[in-house]
Amino acid sequence: MKLLGLDIGGANIKTAFSGVDGLIQGSCYFPIWERKHELRPFLGRVVEEFKPERVALTMTAELSDAFSNKREGVNFIVDSLEGCFNGRILVSSTDGVFVSPKEAREEYMKVASANWVAISQYAAKRYDSGVLVDVGSTTTDIIPFSEGLIVPEGRTDLERLQSGELLYTGALRTNLATIADSVPVRGVETGVSSEFFALTADVYRVLGDIQEEDYVCDTPDERGKSTKECMARIARVVCADTLMLDDEEIRDIACYLKDNQLGLVRRGMEKIADRWGLDKAFTCGSGSFIAEKAACKAGLEIHRLEMNTASAMLNLLRE
Amino acid sequence: MKLLGLDIGGANIKTAFSGVDGLIQGSCYFPIWERKHELRPFLGRVVEEFKPERVALTMTAELSDAFSNKREGVNFIVDSLEGCFNGRILVSSTDGVFVSPKEAREEYMKVASANWVAISQYAAKRYDSGVLVDVGSTTTDIIPFSEGLIVPEGRTDLERLQSGELLYTGALRTNLATIADSVPVRGVETGVSSEFFALTADVYRVLGDIQEEDYVCDTPDERGKSTKECMARIARVVCADTLMLDDEEIRDIACYLKDNQLGLVRRGMEKIADRWGLDKAFTCGSGSFIAEKAACKAGLEIHRLEMNTASAMLNLLRE
Repeated sequence: MKLLGLDIGGANIKTAFSGVDGLIQGSCYFPIWERKHELRPFLGRVVEEFKPERVALTMTAELSDAFSNKREGVNFIVDSLEGCFNGRILVSSTDGVFVSPKEAREEYMKVASANWVAISQYAAKRYDSGVLVDVGSTTTDIIPFSEGLIVPEGRTDLERLQSGELLYTGALRTNLATIADSVPVRGVETGVSSEFFALTADVYRVLGDIQEEDYVCDTPDERGKSTKECMARIARVVCADTLMLDDEEIRDIACYLKDNQLGLVRRGMEKIADRWGLDKAFTCGSGSFIAEKAACKAGLEIHRLEMNTASAMLNLLRE
Repeated sequence: MKLLGLDIGGANIKTAFSGVDGLIQGSCYFPIWERKHELRPFLGRVVEEFKPERVALTMTAELSDAFSNKREGVNFIVDSLEGCFNGRILVSSTDGVFVSPKEAREEYMKVASANWVAISQYAAKRYDSGVLVDVGSTTTDIIPFSEGLIVPEGRTDLERLQSGELLYTGALRTNLATIADSVPVRGVETGVSSEFFALTADVYRVLGDIQEEDYVCDTPDERGKSTKECMARIARVVCADTLMLDDEEIRDIACYLKDNQLGLVRRGMEKIADRWGLDKAFTCGSGSFIAEKAACKAGLEIHRLEMNTASAMLNLLRE
């Protein structure tokens, strides 16, 4: 059976194809708020390329402000896929089962932002107990599992923001102004600009944690992704520029912001691990380097999962 | 002498014209990062309309990421005005004097983001002692003055972020994710999305502090400015929508965020007032309603200045 997995996020679409040659994983920057009407042709090209017999679908893009509400978003995404694929579609739900497009439309809240379910279910089945820590470009999922089952307190994004199982902080697209109210500059606490001047990708690029090709989202100022250009964006966060601050001073700001984000993820992870008495972290996502450092500081045993959410669905369907 | 005052901010251009019929003040939403190349024709139309003999200029738009650095920004803005006005141009500097376009280019750091100077100098000359609190669409200036002179600790934006005389929080354009890390929803602490889903204008519109015509900036989702549409944006900050949260629940979130922003301004104002032993607040700006509430809570005597930064320059020049 040739299976295609699709994870349609707000900023990225992840794909996984499982055919005779094994598994092929992919990811593409696709900002839905700018390219909503290109979704159907995009999916059409993916379907054309892989010619799957079945497609497994999960999403978070329905939250985007391209849609008035989640119902409209879920319908649009399901319609887009149905419009270019005639075979069977299976939609991942927060109940941990796959549902039909018809059920997805009827129970749209159960398929909205369900993309954390499949990968944590996969981890639970394979590793029995631990915490899944998936640091993506935009958000972080921290999902506890025990005795082969996931045991989240929240199911919807709202509930997950309340339970701490969803942190809205990520490795690439997070506005630095949401990570710290102030940063030290030349030893003095300095307020930050609340504009969208720079993002976490700039910090990790300057500190060498990611390379230019990993910086897959757009830059806030539409300039390039060289470390020099990333530094200029970071300087602007304290209303300065690269004529006022030297490289070392900008790197100090980047280090401070990195530590702040690591602290957010570490404390979130500790809270969930402590709640369930878990001692292993299973890390994944484009920001797995953050998950690993945070898990290390939290004293958890680290296991890296080389899998995206789209391929996790295929693994569950194959069993 | 027919005088025109121009305050070219990153998001708004304020004008003041003083001629035979007295003073005319104006403000126009002009996002420089989108409309940089329309600046010169825009200024040309203003000059054509008022036919001033002299123009006084102040700016903060040079900080915009439309420019690589402040030098480029200052040069571009001065060039744009010189390109459409042949008379004498006076540029406000952080030293408290007006300089020529040539000096502005040479000493660009002294004219960069100097738009807080003229209005606080005006207040100092007229009222002797107090704290100027100018809450704009994007930022808040808190400038102490004593015995007829302004006594700021910082002059550049970077120094002012360090001294607390510049808070990067405003009445319209501030991303709600920079005001609070979490908000209560149905009594439960709930993390917020770090996306640019909603801004302070949405909060003040929902709470009735501003009307639709006061919401002069763009909406984050390019939808309208009705309270219903503002509520939808606020709901999205906790990854919800108006089908999940009712009006009362969304208003509770708005109230919490308003209190948070008021607290930021109040604490900032108290810090500066205490530093100099001042007991009067002189409020202005599109967010003067915030400045007044914060000053009231801080126990300061409140005086409202009915003046924008552009007309403050004209007042100084006339003396």
